[in-house]
Amino acid sequence: MPPASDVLRTHPHQPSTMDLIIACVETCADCARACSACADACMCEEGVAELRECIRLNLDCADVCASTGAVVSRLTRPHRAPMKALLQACIEACNTCSEVCASHANMHSHCRACAEVCRHCERACVALLKAIP
Amino acid sequence: MPPASDVLRTHPHQPSTMDLIIACVETCADCARACSACADACMCEEGVAELRECIRLNLDCADVCASTGAVVSRLTRPHRAPMKALLQACIEACNTCSEVCASHANMHSHCRACAEVCRHCERACVALLKAIP
Amino acid sequence: MPPASDVLRTHPHQPSTMDLIIACVETCADCARACSACADACMCEEGVAELRECIRLNLDCADVCASTGAVVSRLTRPHRAPMKALLQACIEACNTCSEVCASHANMHSHCRACAEVCRHCERACVALLKAIP
Amino acid sequence: MPPASDVLRTHPHQPSTMDLIIACVETCADCARACSACADACMCEEGVAELRECIRLNLDCADVCASTGAVVSRLTRPHRAPMKALLQACIEACNTCSEVCASHANMHSHCRACAEVCRHCERACVALLKAIP
Repeated sequence: MPPASDVLRTHPHQPSTMDLIIACVETCADCARACSACADACMCEEGVAELRECIRLNLDCADVCASTGAVVSRLTRPHRAPMKALLQACIEACNTCSEVCASHANMHSHCRACAEVCRHCERACVALLKAIP
Repeated sequence: MPPASDVLRTHPHQPSTMDLIIACVETCADCARACSACADACMCEEGVAELRECIRLNLDCADVCASTGAVVSRLTRPHRAPMKALLQACIEACNTCSEVCASHANMHSHCRACAEVCRHCERACVALLKAIP
Repeated sequence: MPPASDVLRTHPHQPSTMDLIIACVETCADCARACSACADACMCEEGVAELRECIRLNLDCADVCASTGAVVSRLTRPHRAPMKALLQACIEACNTCSEVCASHANMHSHCRACAEVCRHCERACVALLKAIP
Repeated sequence: MPPASDVLRTHPHQPSTMDLIIACVETCADCARACSACADACMCEEGVAELRECIRLNLDCADVCASTGAVVSRLTRPHRAPMKALLQACIEACNTCSEVCASHANMHSHCRACAEVCRHCERACVALLKAIP
């Protein structure tokens, strides 16, 4: 499969934070995918009524990661304030979703997997946020 | 046209902030639509090369408003920290986009219209954010 | 509230089908919003386990309507084949979601409201699709 | 990085087409990312005015791939008609975007990379579409 990051690697702008940007964009895409699938998997469980909070946070995290990944991937004339606020929002969404997923990781393997992906995405957002002056 | 807000008005949960939630969800949907259309309109202008910053911020604002509207419309087991961080990110996105659109409102009517919609959305997000304890 | 359609009305391109385009873009935004809220409302119901099919179709319809609205709102250099295929996909999504929502409209007012919004959106997509040569 | 596909691999439903589903979901996420980045890269080029068609198709393809990936990743109570129509729409979007990107692949490396990712995604959608009865 040709890597999607080739498009960023051949972008006319190559900021010094490119590795952090690519890592953030990739984990945001992964996390959106994982959270969306985890919401659906939770919905199929017998105990779906106990998983409402998890499903809701999964859907939220998928939405926030999708928009964060899109915004971070744009290199044209970036503005710092909205970028930093969005990364902060993504960190909060990932952290909350990861904690709730992890709390029933013993019962549902998809929640365990999703919690890990969320934690990974949170770290990539933190790393990029720290690198923005 | 049957109003989409009827679905929220008949939701099993009716939080005390429902009017603010509906106003925020509606303006986020409007703003996502306006920003997406403004990006496209800017791209058709002769002076597209001068409008790169505006297009980029339009696309960002459309993405952030879409996810904010979706998250705010969920009433199941909300968590305050990620909700507040996302509203803050939406406020920043709307404010930045509105300012840049307004700066060439004299030249492009679509930017003037978009700047107003963004400002309206920003206010709806601020109002809801203040109402969250 | 300043109408988001002002941005389309002041777009440099004004195709002869503009009224149909605006109607389609507006109902897609409404339908995305209604379906996302209906999924959340269903999830809060006691009988959530019986509503899995409805929630899934709601989420699908919200996703398809969001992308259809965005694509239809772009007036720059449109291509007919992908536009028509996407409108067809949106018609199918709205029709399926509307039917399933309508099937338990007696039990849940949010499903009745959502079924109507979906049907309205389906019609707007059909009207635009017919107008594309 | 923990793979997002682990969530699908541990989903309570494991349809016989799971490998095709995962391939489709992954390439849709990649393609959405590539197209969004290609639109931004095109916008930074000196000759942005010549790239309007490409940018527009990139944005369309990103939107359609994002919704297709989300819908395909849901395994709860799927309906064939809307799924097939959406895959068809994604095939059209990827094919059109790939052709236009490939037409100036010699001038812009990001368009060459994007054209390849689109073609790959198109094939994954075709493969899944064929496997749905």
